[in-house]
Amino acid sequence: MYDMHGETVHFDTENNRLCLIDQTKLPNETVILSLHTAEEIYTAIARLQVRGAPAIGVAAAIGLAVLANESAAEASAEFEAEFRKNAAYLISARPTAVNLPWAVGEMQKAFSENRHKSLPEIKAALTRCALGLHAADIDVCRRIGEYGAPLLKNCRAVLTHCNAGRLAAVKYGTALAPVYIAKAQGHAVSVYADETRPLLQGARLTAYELQAAGIEVTAICDNMASYVMQNKLVDAVLVGCDRVARNGDTANKIGTSGVAALAKYYGIPFYVCAPYSTIDFSISSGAEIPIEQRDGAEIGEMWYQIPMLPKGVRTLNPAFDVTDRSLITAFITEKGVLQPSEF
Amino acid sequence: MYDMHGETVHFDTENNRLCLIDQTKLPNETVILSLHTAEEIYTAIARLQVRGAPAIGVAAAIGLAVLANESAAEASAEFEAEFRKNAAYLISARPTAVNLPWAVGEMQKAFSENRHKSLPEIKAALTRCALGLHAADIDVCRRIGEYGAPLLKNCRAVLTHCNAGRLAAVKYGTALAPVYIAKAQGHAVSVYADETRPLLQGARLTAYELQAAGIEVTAICDNMASYVMQNKLVDAVLVGCDRVARNGDTANKIGTSGVAALAKYYGIPFYVCAPYSTIDFSISSGAEIPIEQRDGAEIGEMWYQIPMLPKGVRTLNPAFDVTDRSLITAFITEKGVLQPSEF
Repeated sequence: MYDMHGETVHFDTENNRLCLIDQTKLPNETVILSLHTAEEIYTAIARLQVRGAPAIGVAAAIGLAVLANESAAEASAEFEAEFRKNAAYLISARPTAVNLPWAVGEMQKAFSENRHKSLPEIKAALTRCALGLHAADIDVCRRIGEYGAPLLKNCRAVLTHCNAGRLAAVKYGTALAPVYIAKAQGHAVSVYADETRPLLQGARLTAYELQAAGIEVTAICDNMASYVMQNKLVDAVLVGCDRVARNGDTANKIGTSGVAALAKYYGIPFYVCAPYSTIDFSISSGAEIPIEQRDGAEIGEMWYQIPMLPKGVRTLNPAFDVTDRSLITAFITEKGVLQPSEF
Repeated sequence: MYDMHGETVHFDTENNRLCLIDQTKLPNETVILSLHTAEEIYTAIARLQVRGAPAIGVAAAIGLAVLANESAAEASAEFEAEFRKNAAYLISARPTAVNLPWAVGEMQKAFSENRHKSLPEIKAALTRCALGLHAADIDVCRRIGEYGAPLLKNCRAVLTHCNAGRLAAVKYGTALAPVYIAKAQGHAVSVYADETRPLLQGARLTAYELQAAGIEVTAICDNMASYVMQNKLVDAVLVGCDRVARNGDTANKIGTSGVAALAKYYGIPFYVCAPYSTIDFSISSGAEIPIEQRDGAEIGEMWYQIPMLPKGVRTLNPAFDVTDRSLITAFITEKGVLQPSEF
């Protein structure tokens, strides 16, 4: 097992490997994956062994560096063709989060800036770029936490949906960063975690990482969020996101738009926590964000001892939804607490 | 196996047995329970082998008749003490639905009206009362369907939460009765069924019974209701309920209040379908309805191959919530489509 240095995504430069905690195995087993082929890295992203918008961006960048370092190509043209093929392949692993194409785009920029150099120099530049994105993610998330913590001053508890904690990024997470920083500043905020069907990221990942960090966490089913708000058990909602349109419409894990509408109804502030790079200035509204539709077996069969849906029943399984900007109190980014007009 | 005559709850008077489809085994196995002891009947209600407000009321009434018929008591006083003890015991099996104490109350009335008679005559009166409640439930649900069907005239699809179909009553169900009657009248309405965590009544029961009835059903996770409404896939919401306060506040399966708030936000009519007996005139608002809290293992462990929550994580597992009357478009009862002012 590689030492992950407390990180969810790690670049083992000594052995040229992308190292990940396999999140499909949590909370029952902590398995570290050590990857170096394009298929392995694609699969890790597509099958959610690594998930969370910031984490998959960094994983893809490190993956591209690993693949470049592994390349046996001797000619520049061959090397470049390989690099571009790998970049397109990894981008295609998940469609919704903007961080994946963004991080791959940063690697493509690094390639372009160094394409006149020798292959070893290009490889070194790609490695530096991936390590830079990795370090930047830690820094960005810490700053999201620092901007968010003061907003929790009068909060005893917050609600979160899915997992946008340290397991969704390299280290601090996005939505949970304010909770971690508040704790470090001496203010304990407890967390209600929606279990987040069908993949149960809230139960398996958010509950796991908060318990490990010594933060009080209460797991609930997704349909209990209304009860929790109605009974004034939470004072704010914190979520991460996968892509924000120019106007503030926000794609995040399926169910987020429902939690946001409930928060509005119950008069509870609803904050979206995200690196500034999550804002996609190329699209004007949420209507332009592609929504990934996943296999219905995730609803009827996954995790279970026996199927919980009768055979042949139709399912609908969108992995994300779009929250209207009118439901969002503010965006907590590494550049500050912003309204869409301030993007 | 007893012939259930297409019913969810049946009184086998020949063998003096309460017969039920064991709903904890659906959709994988159809097991018929045939019960005749107080412990068996209490357990069937408490452990949700029979569930759904109308069904548990009828089951308790038949159960009391079965127990009375089984009684070896020879003295009136002994027989009455046994009857009252059984009545209190069965009422205590579930706290939220009003139909349970209501149906038991009807049996107590039948007892009181006949207490001066011989024990065989009292037993016969209790049997008649239970059969009457059973027949009335079928009739009431059919009329709910007849009042509800015209409201679906322009609907292609409706959303429902939990199971308030034929498996929640004796025959037609409450929330799904309008869909069944509309189909009988030649108008096909398809149904989106919230899976309804943690007990999955929507996936296991609603999807099962609609598929069996040849009605198109699409199963979704609870957190997808917002997506379904936002994308205009449904034109109305139909739910059942467990207890309605005098002012119209309504207790129903956990998550109902969230669906109602979403329907309001998206401008979709939200109908509560219920027998008139579900209205509890003894309470003025939803604040007085006791909410059953259930074991957290239902969230973290039930149905799964391995636990989906880390050991020791706190859970909150309310089985019901209260929907504010302001979110309810109308109540569909056997007396017509009503507003609380018309109760």
